[in-house]
Amino acid sequence: MTRCLLLCLTVLAAPTLAQDDEFLPASTNVWGAEFPRVSTDGRVQLRVYAPNADSVRVNFLSGPKEAMVKGSDGHWTFTTPPLDPGLHYYMFHIDGVETSDLGSHAFFGGGKHASAVEVPAPDAAYYSIQDVPRGQVREIWYPSDVTGTWRHAMVYLPPAYDTDTDARYPVLYLQHGGGEDETGWIRQGRANFILDNLIAAGDAAPMIVVMAYGYASRPGDAPPPSGDRWAGFMRMMEVFSDDLTDALIPFIDGTFRTLAGRDHRAMAGLSMGGMQTFHITTNRLDLFSHIGGFSGAGIPLGGQGFDPSTDYNGVFADPQEFARRVHLLWIGVGTDEPEGMRQGIHGLHNALTNAGIDHVFYESPGTDHEWETWRRSLRDFAPRLFR
Amino acid sequence: MTRCLLLCLTVLAAPTLAQDDEFLPASTNVWGAEFPRVSTDGRVQLRVYAPNADSVRVNFLSGPKEAMVKGSDGHWTFTTPPLDPGLHYYMFHIDGVETSDLGSHAFFGGGKHASAVEVPAPDAAYYSIQDVPRGQVREIWYPSDVTGTWRHAMVYLPPAYDTDTDARYPVLYLQHGGGEDETGWIRQGRANFILDNLIAAGDAAPMIVVMAYGYASRPGDAPPPSGDRWAGFMRMMEVFSDDLTDALIPFIDGTFRTLAGRDHRAMAGLSMGGMQTFHITTNRLDLFSHIGGFSGAGIPLGGQGFDPSTDYNGVFADPQEFARRVHLLWIGVGTDEPEGMRQGIHGLHNALTNAGIDHVFYESPGTDHEWETWRRSLRDFAPRLFR
Repeated sequence: MTRCLLLCLTVLAAPTLAQDDEFLPASTNVWGAEFPRVSTDGRVQLRVYAPNADSVRVNFLSGPKEAMVKGSDGHWTFTTPPLDPGLHYYMFHIDGVETSDLGSHAFFGGGKHASAVEVPAPDAAYYSIQDVPRGQVREIWYPSDVTGTWRHAMVYLPPAYDTDTDARYPVLYLQHGGGEDETGWIRQGRANFILDNLIAAGDAAPMIVVMAYGYASRPGDAPPPSGDRWAGFMRMMEVFSDDLTDALIPFIDGTFRTLAGRDHRAMAGLSMGGMQTFHITTNRLDLFSHIGGFSGAGIPLGGQGFDPSTDYNGVFADPQEFARRVHLLWIGVGTDEPEGMRQGIHGLHNALTNAGIDHVFYESPGTDHEWETWRRSLRDFAPRLFR
Repeated sequence: MTRCLLLCLTVLAAPTLAQDDEFLPASTNVWGAEFPRVSTDGRVQLRVYAPNADSVRVNFLSGPKEAMVKGSDGHWTFTTPPLDPGLHYYMFHIDGVETSDLGSHAFFGGGKHASAVEVPAPDAAYYSIQDVPRGQVREIWYPSDVTGTWRHAMVYLPPAYDTDTDARYPVLYLQHGGGEDETGWIRQGRANFILDNLIAAGDAAPMIVVMAYGYASRPGDAPPPSGDRWAGFMRMMEVFSDDLTDALIPFIDGTFRTLAGRDHRAMAGLSMGGMQTFHITTNRLDLFSHIGGFSGAGIPLGGQGFDPSTDYNGVFADPQEFARRVHLLWIGVGTDEPEGMRQGIHGLHNALTNAGIDHVFYESPGTDHEWETWRRSLRDFAPRLFR
């Protein structure tokens, strides 16, 4: 029994530090981890044990990238200035080696299981679990002839799905960003709680939400041409598009009680997922009628050179025809996002306006290219669907 | 758009190495990661970039703990001897700092998001996804008055659950080991595929499997007394027991189409989860009738001093009465587990035999205190349930 006891007791033996009333362990920590800690005004205390290191940095993906300070006990510490509310990815760099914080739960981002800290938001209720009827999140594995593999996806079913067994529901396909995966919208985005709360308040139609993995390759695909990352990205996007339309959608419509027509099918995504959404939906308006780009939407970048008569498969050439076919076109961005991103989304917004294309433009105040922007985007987007 | 593109293209830009026919990237790697690699005979090649480090080790939880070798390019490498088939937790130690391998998917073990590598097993079909009717895994959040929190659990529903909407099913409560969490039986254990395959073959009754988080504390609980880890563990186990019986089971029976009586309810667990199972079920035979301990079962350790007339709430005092109430008592262990563990389970087996208690004793050939033993345990255990 020794091994078992060793394991379980070790986990229980997290060090107990003197309480610091101002800072409390983050909600995103693993069981028993005292760090990172968050203060009521959003400062984050980080700590890592690296007794032999010469240099330790903490790098927030969107936030401080700073040297930590070594203490006599071998722990390196750093306290951030107040951060924006929401979830912030970060990693340690110890003598040049990028490592996760073992005190943090892992959130898949940047192509790895990254660390992240949740800074409580004053308006967090809409994405927090509440005592309302709650849907469930299901994991599915679907076979794809496109990739030649089984693929894993997450599916949110609305609260009444199990009890009202005759009802059929519209479907939102909701995509993660670059370097993330199909778990992002649940773990980081809390899409299930956002939908639960919107549906309970009568603010959104009950719907199914499908979250797929946006990376895909065909069997035996060679790596992208060396030095041409763009070609690799575009090829990947085409494969994912085929996987979505030829494998995933038929599987979902065959497995769940969906309303299968285009009028009842939406797609949205954040960042890279927004680009995929625009690319896929504008080529397949036979399948989709609602489109959302959260901090990521279109090529051409910034709307420069945007030609509504030809770009995006020409769907923007005729505003009346577009409005007849597309029930919702939604784009959004956070006011604190990097200038290039803001210019891109604003440029698209202006270009669409100039082309006479009816659309919703949303700005999330005071948030960066991070999940708080996309939680808010979903909160604004979902109530406009399937009305 | 720069940030988005930067992220997604970075992920696509994994280095492309010369192919080594003997070694292939592990199935447990993240998208694009070339390491770890596994050879057909079970050797594992590890690699980590740490150009400034003086010392790098790789520590397998049950396996090699060895120094890695630094190359001129700043990468440290190590190739293991052939490992047992199955999933092996490991971590790097870089100049004394424990870090995960960013090339590996994370698996919650040892109280952290650990790395792990899957070494293909000749008999892996029974826990691999197959083209058979498949159940789904659901995530639930249940309110617990015991802990004062919402708690997350995983629920496997058998293939026909959604289509045969009048059927009710027995329930197996299946617990992870020390330092793991409620995701372990799906991610590491592949319990859903094991059940899918057993049910498709007619070898197991369709059942619901509930996987809860085995750590729990009451609101405002002070940390365990300093230096008395055992007291802390026992208190934690009592809180989890109350959470399971007073919050989780009523939630499950109220949410899913269960057969709610004791005859249709089983509990099993691995390692620490086996100890919890024995403790909880023997105190609550009004709730459970099937009991499984996978490489972890009983206190007293090794069966020494085991007094069937009084230990475990006295349930072993009368073998006839025990056999009437308990439809299955199952204990098992791997033949390559540490000697202390093997003595413990063998001792319990002998003590139960001497006390005239009917039970199943299983040994997994050639496997250690690792998930391959517990996948096999579930494969042997599940078909014996609810018959």
